[in-house]
Amino acid sequence: MPQMHAERRECARQKIAELGADAALITSLPNVRYLTGMVSSNAALLLPADGPAVLATDSRYEEAARRDCTDLDLVVDRVIESALATLAAGRGVAVLAFEAQEMTVERHHDLASLADGPALLVPLGRMIEEERMVKDEAEIALLARACAITSEAFEAVLPQMTAGRTERELATALERTMVDLGAEAPAFDTIVASGPNGAIPHHVPGGRAFAAGDLITVDCGARYAGYHADMTRTVALGEPAGWQREIYEIVATAQRAGVEAATPGADVRTVDAASRDLIAAAGHDDHFGHGLGHGVGLEVHEAPIIGYGRTGTLVDRVPVTVEPGIYLPGRGGVRIEDTLVVRDGPGAAGSHQMLTTTTRDLLVL
Amino acid sequence: MPQMHAERRECARQKIAELGADAALITSLPNVRYLTGMVSSNAALLLPADGPAVLATDSRYEEAARRDCTDLDLVVDRVIESALATLAAGRGVAVLAFEAQEMTVERHHDLASLADGPALLVPLGRMIEEERMVKDEAEIALLARACAITSEAFEAVLPQMTAGRTERELATALERTMVDLGAEAPAFDTIVASGPNGAIPHHVPGGRAFAAGDLITVDCGARYAGYHADMTRTVALGEPAGWQREIYEIVATAQRAGVEAATPGADVRTVDAASRDLIAAAGHDDHFGHGLGHGVGLEVHEAPIIGYGRTGTLVDRVPVTVEPGIYLPGRGGVRIEDTLVVRDGPGAAGSHQMLTTTTRDLLVL
Repeated sequence: MPQMHAERRECARQKIAELGADAALITSLPNVRYLTGMVSSNAALLLPADGPAVLATDSRYEEAARRDCTDLDLVVDRVIESALATLAAGRGVAVLAFEAQEMTVERHHDLASLADGPALLVPLGRMIEEERMVKDEAEIALLARACAITSEAFEAVLPQMTAGRTERELATALERTMVDLGAEAPAFDTIVASGPNGAIPHHVPGGRAFAAGDLITVDCGARYAGYHADMTRTVALGEPAGWQREIYEIVATAQRAGVEAATPGADVRTVDAASRDLIAAAGHDDHFGHGLGHGVGLEVHEAPIIGYGRTGTLVDRVPVTVEPGIYLPGRGGVRIEDTLVVRDGPGAAGSHQMLTTTTRDLLVL
Repeated sequence: MPQMHAERRECARQKIAELGADAALITSLPNVRYLTGMVSSNAALLLPADGPAVLATDSRYEEAARRDCTDLDLVVDRVIESALATLAAGRGVAVLAFEAQEMTVERHHDLASLADGPALLVPLGRMIEEERMVKDEAEIALLARACAITSEAFEAVLPQMTAGRTERELATALERTMVDLGAEAPAFDTIVASGPNGAIPHHVPGGRAFAAGDLITVDCGARYAGYHADMTRTVALGEPAGWQREIYEIVATAQRAGVEAATPGADVRTVDAASRDLIAAAGHDDHFGHGLGHGVGLEVHEAPIIGYGRTGTLVDRVPVTVEPGIYLPGRGGVRIEDTLVVRDGPGAAGSHQMLTTTTRDLLVL
């Protein structure tokens, strides 16, 4: 493992040098984990373009850091960013790059005010996030395991989706099943949205009991070794009404089109449009307000974002979700979501590898 | 509920006016929840010193916002901070206060660059966090419920702390018991640190099996209606060795002293010293590196921080934790923590109300 993290740091060092900075102060916790393996709620990394990297954390994590990050110098301090900035300046760092997308205005002010800090603070940009976007095979294997657990757990709790069972009860059962199957935790708070609640894309599962005639949307994922799965299925409790079948088929068709479009070289707006245009053509333009998908990895939402106002191009080994939906206020909704990996394939359009595998056909329970 | 949130906003409005700002842009999610009741991963509040308050969220939370925040104007947008800043300027806001402790440098740059934004952005300070520090009785009742669930769940799983059971298994059993007893979720990732792992204050529970002769530290809490409990107990598996009893007694004595010192009017450094000095006098100065405690409420760590380099004074109706520990690298550790509420009492020193109630005597299992 340390070897893998050292290689990632080497890759980042070159980009830091190209930016013209002497070092980078990495404060985003997923970025720190990616570059060091350190799992902590309070850690930062000083990564010089040249010279030894220094990990900082507080006393709560000192022993874990000494155990897990043997190839890094360690600083234990209560204010880790200031400690590293001061240390950097002492080692001759004049230009220190920082993560403006993560650092607060207050913390930045503190660093800029250090009497013995670096002369200049410059934004690093999303350099590490971009490096993280393309996964190596070891990461994809962990994500695949997270997704396999997710699909298996969802299928295992299907018999519990019966009239009278509440949203909250199902969410709890599903999360426990994921952990029983090997997840370290749910990747995010499970969404179970039944009947009219299905019109709320991020509904918090509550005391509503399932009833015949419901569409029930379940958005869930397992976290495995830090990697986050993300899958949504909508099922019908009892024979669905015409309007329910209709919106299900539109979403399923749009989801297939989005998945097919998620190939190496594809612009994220094109992928979004592949799904969205079908939903709009069916008259539901106003009923699909969110983006089509997002990257997954050490965060459940990470680069790239697949949406209509976004920029970016998919490439080999980028895992993403594809998750169109239709939400009818007061009536209900449908969302279908998979996690997949964009792959170079034999054909001109390349291919993809589905990681979540539960059927996308409408399940009538 | 809307009435309670409206009163909190009125209190904040006066302080915003006193600051000389025309409005505040609240972006800290716990602060938004405190002032509106809105539970969301993406929401912000424009709170003018005078005039209607405006809540912003994205389409995923639109229906929930319309349902739960009927007394607020609503903006649905993909970039909620910019939408509110532009709206504010259009309503004549020239000076907009922002939460520098929460807003990133990147977001601040975006707001400052808006062509049609407010003329001036000024830091709001921790105004809302300070308002949140002193709880009303309704909040204390929710926190008390979270703490009661925590104590009951811990006591329920004591019979499962047997040789051969792993840290992770116990953590899972404890978290499930909290949910079964009414918690909406664990307040944070449960810590179970056994044997030598007890020397790591924030150990992640792993595959280590409990063994006779272990001290086992369990740090856990339930979340109830958004309020976070926090309790730690250390138990002995089998008859403890002399050094184990010794550090347990030191920590227990120090914890009692800290609790007794947590009274209205007490300086947080004095409270910290009440515990820390006893641990240092016993020769364990180097084995207690973290602060003594922290406020709890809508966040598991919030104001005030009770530590040796901190400033602040405790007052009536402030819930805090008191959690000294001794950590011996390679050998093990002890931590004892309670959540309690500082209360005005009949005596000169006031009093406090213990919310976590499990015995602090050493349990030998």
